[in-house]
Amino acid sequence: MNRKGWAILMRSKMKPTTTTTNQHLFNKLPISNEVGLTKPSSQGNQFSQNPSSSMQNPERELKVVQASMHSSISTSKTDIIDSVLNDFSEGYFSLSIQKRQELLLVLAREYDVNRTQVRELIHQYLGLEPPVGEKGQASGLDESLLSAFYRTERNLRHALQPKYEILFERLNTHPGGLKFLTILRADLLSMLAKENIASLRALDSYLKEKLATWLSPAALELHHITWDDSASLLEKIVAYEAVHPISNLLDLKRRLGVGRRCFGYLHPAIPGEPLIFIEVALLKNVAQTIQEVLWDDPPTPESEASCALFYSISSTQPGLAGINLGKFLIKRVIELVKRDMPHVSTFATLSPIPGYMQWLLSKLASQSKLAESEAGYTPHMSDGRSGSTFRENILHPEEEAALMELSEEFSFGKNGMEVMWNLLTSRNYEWTSSERLLSVVQAPLMRLCARYLLQEKKRGKALDAVANFHLQNGAMVERLNWMADRSEKGLCQSGGIMVNYVYR
Amino acid sequence: MNRKGWAILMRSKMKPTTTTTNQHLFNKLPISNEVGLTKPSSQGNQFSQNPSSSMQNPERELKVVQASMHSSISTSKTDIIDSVLNDFSEGYFSLSIQKRQELLLVLAREYDVNRTQVRELIHQYLGLEPPVGEKGQASGLDESLLSAFYRTERNLRHALQPKYEILFERLNTHPGGLKFLTILRADLLSMLAKENIASLRALDSYLKEKLATWLSPAALELHHITWDDSASLLEKIVAYEAVHPISNLLDLKRRLGVGRRCFGYLHPAIPGEPLIFIEVALLKNVAQTIQEVLWDDPPTPESEASCALFYSISSTQPGLAGINLGKFLIKRVIELVKRDMPHVSTFATLSPIPGYMQWLLSKLASQSKLAESEAGYTPHMSDGRSGSTFRENILHPEEEAALMELSEEFSFGKNGMEVMWNLLTSRNYEWTSSERLLSVVQAPLMRLCARYLLQEKKRGKALDAVANFHLQNGAMVERLNWMADRSEKGLCQSGGIMVNYVYR
Repeated sequence: MNRKGWAILMRSKMKPTTTTTNQHLFNKLPISNEVGLTKPSSQGNQFSQNPSSSMQNPERELKVVQASMHSSISTSKTDIIDSVLNDFSEGYFSLSIQKRQELLLVLAREYDVNRTQVRELIHQYLGLEPPVGEKGQASGLDESLLSAFYRTERNLRHALQPKYEILFERLNTHPGGLKFLTILRADLLSMLAKENIASLRALDSYLKEKLATWLSPAALELHHITWDDSASLLEKIVAYEAVHPISNLLDLKRRLGVGRRCFGYLHPAIPGEPLIFIEVALLKNVAQTIQEVLWDDPPTPESEASCALFYSISSTQPGLAGINLGKFLIKRVIELVKRDMPHVSTFATLSPIPGYMQWLLSKLASQSKLAESEAGYTPHMSDGRSGSTFRENILHPEEEAALMELSEEFSFGKNGMEVMWNLLTSRNYEWTSSERLLSVVQAPLMRLCARYLLQEKKRGKALDAVANFHLQNGAMVERLNWMADRSEKGLCQSGGIMVNYVYR
Repeated sequence: MNRKGWAILMRSKMKPTTTTTNQHLFNKLPISNEVGLTKPSSQGNQFSQNPSSSMQNPERELKVVQASMHSSISTSKTDIIDSVLNDFSEGYFSLSIQKRQELLLVLAREYDVNRTQVRELIHQYLGLEPPVGEKGQASGLDESLLSAFYRTERNLRHALQPKYEILFERLNTHPGGLKFLTILRADLLSMLAKENIASLRALDSYLKEKLATWLSPAALELHHITWDDSASLLEKIVAYEAVHPISNLLDLKRRLGVGRRCFGYLHPAIPGEPLIFIEVALLKNVAQTIQEVLWDDPPTPESEASCALFYSISSTQPGLAGINLGKFLIKRVIELVKRDMPHVSTFATLSPIPGYMQWLLSKLASQSKLAESEAGYTPHMSDGRSGSTFRENILHPEEEAALMELSEEFSFGKNGMEVMWNLLTSRNYEWTSSERLLSVVQAPLMRLCARYLLQEKKRGKALDAVANFHLQNGAMVERLNWMADRSEKGLCQSGGIMVNYVYR
């Protein structure tokens, strides 16, 4: 490439443009959320509140949209169903987030399970003899009685489906409908994050199950994303990259070039927009810092690579939160790389630890308080969460001593935990500029990080969302890397520590 | 193309070769069944009984296959699941159809719904107050009680899913698994056609619902099939064409060439094999005979076409019987043609009437008997089926007279209906070679055909499978065409009559 070309690629940050035409309402880029985070980021719903959309598409009366929702569910005329669904989705997009919530409450409550029918079927069902009796012996029913039993059971199963199932099914087979449903679910999640409304949660849980079925990995196409792909697709990669933001076009080009791979899962009904994508670096060894992955120059010749390092995986649809597409994506990418590059034998990640600092700071604060007023407290049992009221020695004596020694110098903190808290929350991460401070905090930070990753659980799952994702997929924690990501994001999330998970 | 090329294309019938290697067991071509036929053809299962397959892949012990089926359902180890599923599917294919039936009976009975759990949940459920009371007013429950209600309802819905759901779900995300499930269902249908076993019917009904969800049109890709497609894909078109068999490669090439279109629905998990495909001719007018569609020479220049005629639609998977993919295919093809060729304004079919002769002959036979012994019978109410015991005048007086006039000449038949029955069942369709005979039977054959298509119903659906398919999709009967298909198949199915359905 000539000098001018490079200059253009390097020139400026690449950001998705804000589109304001009507037809882009469907495509307006929501901000990505990282894989494994089950709560949508508060920005996930940006487009819903974007004032430009309602300006371009004037808000309709809620009643009018509700009427088109009703028709979408109840019409039996196949020739008008498409226009009715278009009408409904346009109407939905014209509404403010508050009006959308009112509409979804109507959907959840008035198009719910028909419970009169369910009760009738339950009574029928309980009156029939099942194929196998209580004691496990066959009931000896003849085939026609058995048929009646299975039929009633199936009818009961169907009756337990809410009526809004019809709307979801119809939208799924409607052009643009699947994408609409993911946006609708992103809205639902942002509403539920603010207020827990039981009927909306039931609606969300049902929609999530439907989306998980429709987006089964068998229906997804693995696409090798390259510099030859369309700008509109590559723009989405830039917009959705959640782990290590892409700084400019040159950065993007590197990530798609020699020694690098990028793969995405595409669904036929959402063309040109990967639902999730993964970035891979082909290296001689498992990398220990993100800098050597993002900016190694020149890259390792591919024939010398023995490690495929997954350094970023981003899901693009906030409305698919909690649906694990990444597991299958990683599995298929491993198969593909193994087949194409038999000399690659190690499959590992270099992953962020997004929840570590939050957990640690809360732990330090609560334990420091407990330590101070220990005499006045009766220890309680741990409730298993950070911020516990159960007093524990989270620092080793030599760590405590080293931190208190600092304290004399810096003169803040009544105990090691408070000193550490103050250091870690100092302005501009000052602690990372001093060799002395770094050497003191390294040992406790690394040790507690291992504990956080391996021992801290919530409902049986690793507390850290990314750790939970990889461990659930069958990977193992291989190594913690000190000062592996010195970016502001890396320091803020995990004090610069990154972790290698290995897939065997 | 040079003369030699043509000669090769014309040379011989093109049939799929019988493959005997192991890896083709998955792909062995089942014979296609026509769209709308809900019963699988008895040939649909050919491959199951193909002795060559068990010779190549020696039959395993049923117990061994059953054990791998059990592991496929019960293992929780993600790293071995693929090999367990491979083991199970290979084992399944090694079994004879009888052994497969035994295995599927075990699946249906021992991995069924957990009814103890269902009963417990029903009792819990009935003890909870629903969100809306019997009289329609909100119950005024607080959110936590409502949550408990929704949770119990969801648990009950989940508990009503049989345990074999897990096997289906796992196979669906396993490479080759979706295809395997369609073969498994084809087996089930052929077993059920021989014997109605309630537990197998429940298994089939559940699997059909799952397949319908996974193969939702949103997950399918519309592919324009051309002469540039791979031989392996085109071979499948030849093998599966169910309506008008493709006689040789030249015939195939015409159907993909100028003035013709062929579109198929492909699923990402079943590559290179359309699940259903449709053949379209671009014509000046709605064609009245199949000969002018198959052998018009030269074809209408595409710029002069005003009609897109759907002359063949074939589904390739007997295991997808009853899942209407054709409806969406036709809809999408209409949209596509409209967009690309705005001068095409008529969308019609030239369709066979596969059930007409069978219905008519049965009607003629039963009514002729009733007519003969009328004095001795008390008329019954019609039971709505052909072969009714309700006496009716199915021939008009002038038709009766014309047929009886023939009778003197041909000297067989005590009444018009018997004469007609004898004519229609004469060897080699002799009646079609005589102008005299043709002119006598045309009026009653055409009139009764209209009645058959428009008035004869079974459970509210048109009795004729193809008629039911198009009418359900929103098309209308436009015109009946006399002697529109003089092939043996056409004469046998519908006395050579074909019908135009029009999509508006």
